Amino acid sequence: MITINAINELRKQINEWKLKGLTVGLVPTMGFLHEGHESLIKRAKKENDRVVVSVFVNPTQFGPNEDLESYPRDIKHDEALCSNAGANIIFNPSPSEMYYKDASTTINVLGLTEGLCGAKRPVHFGGVCLVVSKLFNIVTPNRAYFGEKDAQQLAVIKKMVRDLNFDIEVVGCPIVREIDGLAKSSRNSYLSEHERSAALVLNQSLTLAKEALLAGKNDPAAIKNIITKKLDSESLAKIDYVEIVDSLTLKPVDIINSSILVAIAVYIGKTRLIDNFTFTQGGN
Amino acid sequence: MITINAINELRKQINEWKLKGLTVGLVPTMGFLHEGHESLIKRAKKENDRVVVSVFVNPTQFGPNEDLESYPRDIKHDEALCSNAGANIIFNPSPSEMYYKDASTTINVLGLTEGLCGAKRPVHFGGVCLVVSKLFNIVTPNRAYFGEKDAQQLAVIKKMVRDLNFDIEVVGCPIVREIDGLAKSSRNSYLSEHERSAALVLNQSLTLAKEALLAGKNDPAAIKNIITKKLDSESLAKIDYVEIVDSLTLKPVDIINSSILVAIAVYIGKTRLIDNFTFTQGGN
Repeated sequence: MITINAINELRKQINEWKLKGLTVGLVPTMGFLHEGHESLIKRAKKENDRVVVSVFVNPTQFGPNEDLESYPRDIKHDEALCSNAGANIIFNPSPSEMYYKDASTTINVLGLTEGLCGAKRPVHFGGVCLVVSKLFNIVTPNRAYFGEKDAQQLAVIKKMVRDLNFDIEVVGCPIVREIDGLAKSSRNSYLSEHERSAALVLNQSLTLAKEALLAGKNDPAAIKNIITKKLDSESLAKIDYVEIVDSLTLKPVDIINSSILVAIAVYIGKTRLIDNFTFTQGGN
Repeated sequence: MITINAINELRKQINEWKLKGLTVGLVPTMGFLHEGHESLIKRAKKENDRVVVSVFVNPTQFGPNEDLESYPRDIKHDEALCSNAGANIIFNPSPSEMYYKDASTTINVLGLTEGLCGAKRPVHFGGVCLVVSKLFNIVTPNRAYFGEKDAQQLAVIKKMVRDLNFDIEVVGCPIVREIDGLAKSSRNSYLSEHERSAALVLNQSLTLAKEALLAGKNDPAAIKNIITKKLDSESLAKIDYVEIVDSLTLKPVDIINSSILVAIAVYIGKTRLIDNFTFTQGGN
């Protein structure tokens, strides 16, 4: 496995592969890789001849008061994980390699990005669409892999790919959890020991909601109430949102009779964590 | 030459070419082709193994009160012109083939699209960026050809390609004119005989401006005055804008000491026509 910092160098390698008819899987990440990312890389390895992992921490998807500066980075660890998981290239460009100073092109997926995480993070998904489009154009992968933990991101990217006719299969991969149920996240590294325990309440609240859905409850307000009550029982937790939306349109549902996404964002201390599950009435 | 209506069919043909290592040139047009388009196709033919001409009349680049419905179309004529000029494929998709009903992805190039034509046509360049990105992703050309008559469009596309890392060379081609100097345009077909004569004032006013620049005048206000005076002398002409801007940033210049774009938009009766030239002080 090799580390590449320059776009032109990456393109050269990709072109060599393409000329040989090899397929390429792309795993766009922001580095500080964990077992969740590892599962994406392994899936990509299984389904493609070659795998490229991007670890670029993308400034355009952070708001002015967000954690761009403190976002955790560990390229040595990332290189080791990528190598072990079977990646061929780790792409680690500088911000100036990725963005011209006078860059001014924007991409947005209207309708999917105003609610959920987008409500409090108004520039986030525009930044995600921009960097993912750029990576798509640089790597021209056959398939691209994203975690279902970022459910809204996955829906947005799928729609962008469809709307812009990218010839790329977007593959969503299941959330990977710690043994105690906490969804793996690079931001878990921010948590103190005490906060780490408190953070279990996210998955616990979702588990209660899933049980109620499986028992036949179909009133979103009642389900949201179950989640909210559980979250409120943890003094370190502060709810950002608890939402039940259509899993394709991401619009709130009045009654649960289709495929839904149950999504939450919760501050544990200063750390904002997200978790979710999808559920199809009669199908899950 | 073959006509293709379906995206998948076009992709299949392109993939066959790519597997053989053939290069592809794309000429995005809105059909009703004239000698200006022909010059783009011939240039593309010269520089690429295969040439695709799109004649899709793109609804998203028309404003609500613009001429989408009346925009001239003549696919038989276009097919003959493309065939004679050496194109391999003419791509003529339906609007529903190009756009899903719930399409909601937007692309904009901020900073370049607010002035000139963008001032009166606020949705125009977003629509252009969207359809061109889609065509780029469908055709994956090595080179794409655009006329310098749409100078702002060319600047916008060049910046979008750079900002989004499309691996495509954008080639600008000189304005083709009628013998009497009128810039070729599909919209010239709207002009009555009387209006057709009046329309000569666009190029005539620019010729006067160029003479003044070559004589050393470097005050944009004075140059604009020369153009405005000439245009005002034609009773059928109504000025939309007369602008002198930096040819890269498209921002108005205070003094002419760099590469500038002199651009005008003028209504002749109900028909809006544009024309322009670029000029480099000491270099043209």
